[in-house]
Amino acid sequence: MLFGSVSLMAQSKKAPVTPVSALDKKVDALIASMTLEEKVGQMTEVTLDVVSKTGAATQKMDDAKLKEAIEKYHVGSILNVSGAAYEREHWHEIISTIQTAALKDRLKIPVIYGIDAIHGVTYTVGSTLFPQEIAMAATFNKELAHKAGEITAYETRASYIPWNYSPVLDLGRNALWPRIYETFGEDPFVVKTMGAAMIKGYQGNDIGDKYHVAACMKHYLGYSAPLSGKDRTPAWIPDRYMREYFLPSFAEAVKAGAKTVMINSGEINGTPVHSSKYLLTDVLRGELKFDGIAVSDWRDIQYLFTRHHVASSQKEAVMIAVNAGVDMSMVPYEYSFFDYLVQLVHEGKVPMWRVNQAVHRILKVKYELGLFERPVGNPSDYPKFGSEEFRASSVQAAREAITLLKNNNNVLPLKKNLKVLVTGPTANTMRSLNGGWSYTWQGDVSDKFAANKNTILEAIQKKVGNDNVTYQEGSKFDTLTNVEETIKAAKKSDVIVLCLGELSYTENVGNIDDLNLPDAQIQLATELAKTGKPVILVLAEGRPRIVTKAESLSAATVMTYLSGNEGGDALADILFGDVNPSGKLPITYPRYTNALVNYYRKNLENGNSDDSHGYNPLYEFGFGLSYTTFRYGNLHVSTPALKDGQTLKITVDVTNSGQREGKESVLLYISQQYASIAPDTKRLRGFDKISLKPGETQTVSFNITPADLAFINDQSKSVTEAGEFKIQLGDQTQSFNYVSATVPSRTGKL
Amino acid sequence: MLFGSVSLMAQSKKAPVTPVSALDKKVDALIASMTLEEKVGQMTEVTLDVVSKTGAATQKMDDAKLKEAIEKYHVGSILNVSGAAYEREHWHEIISTIQTAALKDRLKIPVIYGIDAIHGVTYTVGSTLFPQEIAMAATFNKELAHKAGEITAYETRASYIPWNYSPVLDLGRNALWPRIYETFGEDPFVVKTMGAAMIKGYQGNDIGDKYHVAACMKHYLGYSAPLSGKDRTPAWIPDRYMREYFLPSFAEAVKAGAKTVMINSGEINGTPVHSSKYLLTDVLRGELKFDGIAVSDWRDIQYLFTRHHVASSQKEAVMIAVNAGVDMSMVPYEYSFFDYLVQLVHEGKVPMWRVNQAVHRILKVKYELGLFERPVGNPSDYPKFGSEEFRASSVQAAREAITLLKNNNNVLPLKKNLKVLVTGPTANTMRSLNGGWSYTWQGDVSDKFAANKNTILEAIQKKVGNDNVTYQEGSKFDTLTNVEETIKAAKKSDVIVLCLGELSYTENVGNIDDLNLPDAQIQLATELAKTGKPVILVLAEGRPRIVTKAESLSAATVMTYLSGNEGGDALADILFGDVNPSGKLPITYPRYTNALVNYYRKNLENGNSDDSHGYNPLYEFGFGLSYTTFRYGNLHVSTPALKDGQTLKITVDVTNSGQREGKESVLLYISQQYASIAPDTKRLRGFDKISLKPGETQTVSFNITPADLAFINDQSKSVTEAGEFKIQLGDQTQSFNYVSATVPSRTGKL
Repeated sequence: MLFGSVSLMAQSKKAPVTPVSALDKKVDALIASMTLEEKVGQMTEVTLDVVSKTGAATQKMDDAKLKEAIEKYHVGSILNVSGAAYEREHWHEIISTIQTAALKDRLKIPVIYGIDAIHGVTYTVGSTLFPQEIAMAATFNKELAHKAGEITAYETRASYIPWNYSPVLDLGRNALWPRIYETFGEDPFVVKTMGAAMIKGYQGNDIGDKYHVAACMKHYLGYSAPLSGKDRTPAWIPDRYMREYFLPSFAEAVKAGAKTVMINSGEINGTPVHSSKYLLTDVLRGELKFDGIAVSDWRDIQYLFTRHHVASSQKEAVMIAVNAGVDMSMVPYEYSFFDYLVQLVHEGKVPMWRVNQAVHRILKVKYELGLFERPVGNPSDYPKFGSEEFRASSVQAAREAITLLKNNNNVLPLKKNLKVLVTGPTANTMRSLNGGWSYTWQGDVSDKFAANKNTILEAIQKKVGNDNVTYQEGSKFDTLTNVEETIKAAKKSDVIVLCLGELSYTENVGNIDDLNLPDAQIQLATELAKTGKPVILVLAEGRPRIVTKAESLSAATVMTYLSGNEGGDALADILFGDVNPSGKLPITYPRYTNALVNYYRKNLENGNSDDSHGYNPLYEFGFGLSYTTFRYGNLHVSTPALKDGQTLKITVDVTNSGQREGKESVLLYISQQYASIAPDTKRLRGFDKISLKPGETQTVSFNITPADLAFINDQSKSVTEAGEFKIQLGDQTQSFNYVSATVPSRTGKL
Repeated sequence: MLFGSVSLMAQSKKAPVTPVSALDKKVDALIASMTLEEKVGQMTEVTLDVVSKTGAATQKMDDAKLKEAIEKYHVGSILNVSGAAYEREHWHEIISTIQTAALKDRLKIPVIYGIDAIHGVTYTVGSTLFPQEIAMAATFNKELAHKAGEITAYETRASYIPWNYSPVLDLGRNALWPRIYETFGEDPFVVKTMGAAMIKGYQGNDIGDKYHVAACMKHYLGYSAPLSGKDRTPAWIPDRYMREYFLPSFAEAVKAGAKTVMINSGEINGTPVHSSKYLLTDVLRGELKFDGIAVSDWRDIQYLFTRHHVASSQKEAVMIAVNAGVDMSMVPYEYSFFDYLVQLVHEGKVPMWRVNQAVHRILKVKYELGLFERPVGNPSDYPKFGSEEFRASSVQAAREAITLLKNNNNVLPLKKNLKVLVTGPTANTMRSLNGGWSYTWQGDVSDKFAANKNTILEAIQKKVGNDNVTYQEGSKFDTLTNVEETIKAAKKSDVIVLCLGELSYTENVGNIDDLNLPDAQIQLATELAKTGKPVILVLAEGRPRIVTKAESLSAATVMTYLSGNEGGDALADILFGDVNPSGKLPITYPRYTNALVNYYRKNLENGNSDDSHGYNPLYEFGFGLSYTTFRYGNLHVSTPALKDGQTLKITVDVTNSGQREGKESVLLYISQQYASIAPDTKRLRGFDKISLKPGETQTVSFNITPADLAFINDQSKSVTEAGEFKIQLGDQTQSFNYVSATVPSRTGKL
């Protein structure tokens, strides 16, 4: 089936038949009692501003507006925050007011409130903020992703909100893209594994209990690969690669039970995803068997007209989107969607079955969330909100995320009696630890809301005492400030902790035209290096900005990504040796601004004997050092010839060959040598994280079936072709063959 | 049909039926008399080295090797040069020797010799070298492209060679790609128009006459869009965009009668084009109806095994490529292709019909070229080789190509009595005027072979006298040299002509990791600007390197691209006012290294009210200044509602509103407002170049049919959807509607 085309099935005028449960019957009974307006209202989502007083210093509900929303438009959902993060008490007031109003409407259907709780509950004061997804991925520890999901679900429910627009399941392929930090990195296996773990954490066994929420897979599909690198700009993604790289995380999330999905705001090959029946219905429903709610992203139905130009009016945009498979419109500023959809149904341009189908999905999730029985949670049910126990999980995640990239002559860990100069634009702001989606959309007030948390500077001061620490700004993000004083201070110090990187941002606000870190920061590094004092380069940034010149001058380099509220302390623990680093890069760190190739490149990109421009990143995906060393040995495969129905058991011994306890992420790469589609040079097919005492050896094992080795062929089908495969685990390599009696191999073409 | 898939038709075991002419019958009769080995020999192409003596100071034929090539392997084709460019006499000796040997073989089939005569006859001493294709495109004058083709064909035949591997019909979309200068730029309409004009120039009415050659469309298909920007690395091109942007130039070239095609060395969506039956047979033969020779590029069948890994042996690579539709293998170093193909036919893995089909195409072109009657040309038939008449055409092309991008306060043209400092790394080398494919592959000896031509410095000296000109190098391409002396010289001068850019390169040798011009050149510009003397920035480069900082300091900016052997003189003519510039950019000149969007972007890329990162190049496609001014008026359309079967006549008056005669390229843009696939913001749909005296007005007209407004829809079909279109001609805009009774419009979906 051609990518982007409309299947005959999807053109059918009848709803597809799905299994009917008792709950489905209950939902259908409710739908049978609803007017068209009540149904369309369920499909309408507005932002909190719409029901809030305008011009108030702090958010206040507007009773008249709320009445209009509920009684006139029967809105099914409200989202977002008006202003910055609220106290739990204020959330309680908001949600109680909304649900009280909803229960006054004829059918007493509760509103489902949605929020972007991206790395913890973004918009609740005192919540536990975790490292962003890119840093969670660096831990290569899926239990941590699960735990972060669990805690965030608890704290979201503690904020009386049952629906979380998380996790991002997009593939972080493009280093320029301003949301790469919101992804689990560039590898499809890591994204799908960590994503499913987080969804299970969010949803638990029952999203109806008071500690779990409905997760939202986003942004379906291909959002993360804009050709230009700018947010919400067009992507070119052939169907084969869509299925090879981008779809697996969503397929895995559906299997994990994800209840809702949010749609990519971009356009793929010229088709806006909000208008793509192929992606939203044929693939998502037909192939992936997803039966939850598909919600638009912010204003995206309207943008089909005003930005994408595939609709010639707002009304046509509504028709196209709903018929393509959008169940709920995040309108979100007014009710035009409601008005147009009612008209379109009356005119026969949107069939009633499609409205019923969408409303069925929405109401079913509301029932599953327990909103009918418990529209507002009980404030006293959440004693662990913002607790030390929860904080400890965030600390652990940050400690396992932070990645040691260079450590010349074991300059790290530092002795605690050294005189330390801390400098650079990311040294003393929580914005460069938390990033966007922290208290506000752009994370611009983290220093106020997380004032009780430690910046890198504060954490180092706390760790080694104020007397051992000098601070000079050195430079802002793009202009030098007090370089001379900073140099003077450097000369008086034993070591320089130079903190470079980015300020907080997300979405289009984070667009850049040049991946190079601004000149000022590179200059600061250059001047400091001239002092001859060892420079510990700390990177706090949402994407791998080019730092090659500065990095070549460092004695050690530490990547913190955006490691959250506990990131400063975790970094200090690592710098001064209280914690042994164990993070590994979940992305390729590029060396040059126009050499942005991912690790799972093609052989053609490796560079040839006559070409010095092959894959040559500053640091490769999966790279990360420890204060101890690990030795790999005894790589063993259970059979040299894997057959259909068999499982290949791969084992390897990992030994801590150094002097201190440490954790090691064991990464299993398998590459097919020859295939009908040019095979990737390397592909991650498994990972595990272990902890080893000095001298200790553990045997790590992986089970691989032929299906785990599949790729998408030129018919857009997933196949495993017979042939030779090469395993890489640490420095160990081993080959095996897959032999199949039934699956055609590459040479079967003739 | 899914892109990359194998159609049932192509799997058929019988050759498709094609019309049979008298020549076809003659060819078939010859084929009927051939052994398998003789047939496979025709499909085998080796490089001149293979039949030359090794270790000789200058190329010498090796009789024994030639005998082996002809008598043992029956090679059908030889190509390339061994060493650097030859005198015509030497080419005569080579070709005579080869054809004499060929005529001794049983069937006396002449060898077809192929050469890369890229911008004139690259490898013949004294040939007329034209501006490279990118500069030819900047002329927006298709008569010049036709003329360049005609002259190059003449001089290729004067070198006794009948087959030219030109033109490049690839779309120059990616500014990083090292061969962008070999393209006609980024616009599909310009590429197809200029490409077809050049092919008609190469081929004339009869490629059998002694002044024309067989053209070679290359590189079919999608070669120019590697995702990484590096040469011969993977491209991601959805089928829709393949057809929308990349295929039209080849379709137009087939219509223009192109006799041969060379295949893209890269892989698209994981499928190497040399293995793609879909592209090589279904699309090229089935849809485009091309019936000429498809030749591989350099070693590319072997690379299916060693680089792409879609074949697990050399032999399998041969099988895949020939079955996919490759007619001739540019092996080119030995005879493994011959041996494997003979075996594969014996084993039934390549059907004999496929071999016969390939040989038919090859022999037919040999007959059409007159090689059977006249295997070697007559030396005295080419009196115009390297003549003044031909040179004048190259001069005119360079004059119409060079593009004035900035001219603050009309600093240009310069008075001839000014004291001029000429400086910068491109000021005094022919390599930065000619680029690659000049005397050698990498164009590295242009200064020797074109010693009688003028560099920029020499041309300026000639123009205004040595006494008025000072030269200082200032910097090499990536290191500063004598900056202090250069500054001193600048202070003594009235004006600085600062020549920045690139040295010659092509293919992988020209790969870069950073589009920014090297720092040294930017620093030189910065230091020179500090003198306060006006800087005339001259760019001599094969691709638009980022020069934003330096360019902001210039008083005037002139883009010369790679304007060939006459480029220095043409530039001097323009700088000093003897010629009025009329070139326009055939590419977008980007402002930032990670903001590489083409002008025919989507509306989504224009930037929105909340986004400062929209399309914002340094100079837009189609931009170029003149020493006079042009006023557009009276834009008129023949009907406000275009219907099927009708032609829309668009007219506009262009007036020379300035003080001197000038040429103007009139560019017609049409954009659809709303369509089922997000429409491009602008698309060029026509152009014309006119010359106007001061005060003169001409009415320029364009005829547009509904088919001219088509795009590729989500079924991969070319359609014109009903709706509103907007015309832009200069500063004039006008709207019209296309109204169709038969073609479904966007809203026809329901």
